[in-house]
Amino acid sequence: MIEKLNLSMLTDFYEITMANGYYSAGMADEIAYFDMFFRRIPDGGGYAIMAGLDQVIEYMKNLSFSEEDIEYLRSKEIFNEAFLEYLKDFRFTCDVWAVPEGTPIFPGEPLITVRGPVMQAQFVETMILLLINHQSLIATKASRIVRAAQGRPVMEFGTRRSHGTAAAVYGARASYIGGCAGTACTLADEYFETPALGTMAHSWVQMFDSEYEAFKKYCEIYPTNATLLVDTFNVLKSGIPAAIKVFKELDPPVKGIRIDSGDIAYLTKNARRMLDEAGLTDCKIVISNSLDEYIIREVISEGACIDSFGVGEKLITARSEPVFGGVYKLSALEKDGVMIPKIKISENTEKITNPGFKKVVRFFDIDTGRLLGDVIALHEEEPPTGDEYEIFDPKDVWKRKKITNFYTEELQKPIFVKGECVYESPSLHEIREYCLRQQDLMWDEMKRFENPQTYYVDLSHKLWSLKHEMIDAAK
Amino acid sequence: MIEKLNLSMLTDFYEITMANGYYSAGMADEIAYFDMFFRRIPDGGGYAIMAGLDQVIEYMKNLSFSEEDIEYLRSKEIFNEAFLEYLKDFRFTCDVWAVPEGTPIFPGEPLITVRGPVMQAQFVETMILLLINHQSLIATKASRIVRAAQGRPVMEFGTRRSHGTAAAVYGARASYIGGCAGTACTLADEYFETPALGTMAHSWVQMFDSEYEAFKKYCEIYPTNATLLVDTFNVLKSGIPAAIKVFKELDPPVKGIRIDSGDIAYLTKNARRMLDEAGLTDCKIVISNSLDEYIIREVISEGACIDSFGVGEKLITARSEPVFGGVYKLSALEKDGVMIPKIKISENTEKITNPGFKKVVRFFDIDTGRLLGDVIALHEEEPPTGDEYEIFDPKDVWKRKKITNFYTEELQKPIFVKGECVYESPSLHEIREYCLRQQDLMWDEMKRFENPQTYYVDLSHKLWSLKHEMIDAAK
Repeated sequence: MIEKLNLSMLTDFYEITMANGYYSAGMADEIAYFDMFFRRIPDGGGYAIMAGLDQVIEYMKNLSFSEEDIEYLRSKEIFNEAFLEYLKDFRFTCDVWAVPEGTPIFPGEPLITVRGPVMQAQFVETMILLLINHQSLIATKASRIVRAAQGRPVMEFGTRRSHGTAAAVYGARASYIGGCAGTACTLADEYFETPALGTMAHSWVQMFDSEYEAFKKYCEIYPTNATLLVDTFNVLKSGIPAAIKVFKELDPPVKGIRIDSGDIAYLTKNARRMLDEAGLTDCKIVISNSLDEYIIREVISEGACIDSFGVGEKLITARSEPVFGGVYKLSALEKDGVMIPKIKISENTEKITNPGFKKVVRFFDIDTGRLLGDVIALHEEEPPTGDEYEIFDPKDVWKRKKITNFYTEELQKPIFVKGECVYESPSLHEIREYCLRQQDLMWDEMKRFENPQTYYVDLSHKLWSLKHEMIDAAK
Repeated sequence: MIEKLNLSMLTDFYEITMANGYYSAGMADEIAYFDMFFRRIPDGGGYAIMAGLDQVIEYMKNLSFSEEDIEYLRSKEIFNEAFLEYLKDFRFTCDVWAVPEGTPIFPGEPLITVRGPVMQAQFVETMILLLINHQSLIATKASRIVRAAQGRPVMEFGTRRSHGTAAAVYGARASYIGGCAGTACTLADEYFETPALGTMAHSWVQMFDSEYEAFKKYCEIYPTNATLLVDTFNVLKSGIPAAIKVFKELDPPVKGIRIDSGDIAYLTKNARRMLDEAGLTDCKIVISNSLDEYIIREVISEGACIDSFGVGEKLITARSEPVFGGVYKLSALEKDGVMIPKIKISENTEKITNPGFKKVVRFFDIDTGRLLGDVIALHEEEPPTGDEYEIFDPKDVWKRKKITNFYTEELQKPIFVKGECVYESPSLHEIREYCLRQQDLMWDEMKRFENPQTYYVDLSHKLWSLKHEMIDAAK
């Protein structure tokens, strides 16, 4: 069965009222700049992972309105007929810059910048936020869980608890970007080549007269995929003895057991001992019972004997904090070719936006490649060069730090130029590798689950001055 | 842009290994019964709301495998070629019973029961769980939020924070079932006629030289939809005065203001006073700032002056508890026409399943129509009649209660008979009305947000005896 969703109409209704409003007010072609950014890292973490860009690109490439869409809008009786006519031939013509998927990202950084006719640049808000918020949330959570597993493979097992069909498939994709080794989701494998894995449910075991028979039949059919679920009745008294018996009899080339309930540390230590005593030192132990980064860290510290993890609902829903709070804000206008920066003031200092057309510059250590800090600068500024660059905290400006021995990279890449896609997306495997490599280049202090070191994300002098002039002017 | 997802392959990989396993073991046509049920109500609530059935029906009606799907499976090199051939002509032939959408549901009750060839009945597990878990989660959360609003309309505003595209659209659908008045999601309106609403973002205001001009232009274009966003600069000092000026000048027939930040109680009380003093007693106040049932309850108790609520991320992600833990368990086999009940034993008493082919009987008070309690019985049992029926707690069997003056209803309805759909789904509006009516028939004590009264969900004597015989036999 094919589920079809019309993404062009998957938008907040106010995007359409505003688009029609700009059209009706004769402002449709005024050039505006919008930034997508987020304000805090979920779970109090030290960094987040960018994900979902490929889906944003697909969306922008294919944005169009069908006769039915226009008929539906007409039935609302509030839209300008000329606007509805315009939608018929709608073509996306904006410029877009974005941070590639798999990149470690930090609050306040423009992750996606859209420049173009305000009607269009505004319209894409909902889908940019929906797609980037979702996949960045899951990729970030996955990176935490993978880190906790300390090199042991983590499989994404959450399809059945995901928030709808797309959450399952794109959640598996994002988990893979964040470092998971694979997924239970078959469709994600078929679409994205995120390796899919799976063997049996408890019902398989219940369908036979005994665990022994269930396991034996399974090993006969799948000698190269023989991970046996041993907790249908009693792990240590019945499941593992039956698995050992079958493994000894059939000696399948790949042997594993999966435990899906009970005390992980206790059961896996005893399971390991029983398997080893039976000479099955090559039999792997897989655990899959309401896991997250905290439980994985704890059972490993207790000496649990685990070769790999299957993580379900707490990953696919990012249960501990299921919202990635990305926002999309107007940052500038162009009038007659002149840039007019825009700012949104708020009583809450954190919520005051950074004005103007901007970019993010990341500093790396020349010798180690380590991430040293990021600076948000105006787009027109030259990249910093030379021996030394002083960064300062935009809130506590007395906090200054001299960066030396660095090279820089601009994080945002051009994605669309006048509506033409100019970006070649890496493969998902490349994105995952890039993401793992970038994380290797971060200090361990940033990777703590609690109270990580705060990474430097500062403003250039020029941007800081512009922002504060505008705040003063607003008062 | 149309997003296409191949739902037939949106399945845990183990469903396919098991299906191929049953096929290869010559067990494909053994008749099995599976129940979908859940174990606890999210947020410690008194009841949950069934939702998602229509999507399950669509899925089952259209389940089939394409050449590409089969080619993909073949490439795994673990599946039986005869099984792959069989998939080509796959047709769903099971019997299905289910509880209609919008029904209040309780832990342990079989919400969906599937009877059929084990290979098929097992295969549909992942999608049944995914669809019912997601929509029931959101419908349940919506019903809490709507209850907190005490009759004021609640709009679902969470598209941008939803977990992917389907979560936005079907989340809006489920929110509507749970009692929301509408949504910001345009596509949900186009598909399901959940009324979509929306006016402007802060960027609309920023695009003009002043709030006054932004509001005036908006009211000119949308006189019948003039809800003005008044918190771009300062609600009381600038936003509301500008809105009042425009409303006085243009007198649009529908007037409203929306506040999206700040102290809700303080701002709305002052806003109401200012509007009333200006003679704008018909101007509505809409609030939309990180709301959930707890915040809504609190601001109402503080006397906040609010006409309607827009609720975003905390509804669309069910943020406080984003998992609805439905499971799908084997309950019986048929061998040569004889029913063989199956049970899954667990150290954890709550996790022991109810064996056999079952049904749920709901007791209503004849005079008031109130819900009195539910009994899970074997399917073959006659519905209780007469003057008195004694129910008892399946765990604390000394807890007994005599129900009198009742009539009963079986909650599960036939949905598929031998793969043919025999169920006519109500319209979404009818489902929503039914859901609201059912909630009216529940005691207030069950509707508390904390420590609600536990509703009676007991087992029939016959089912209880069968279960305990099987537990004893397993020891």
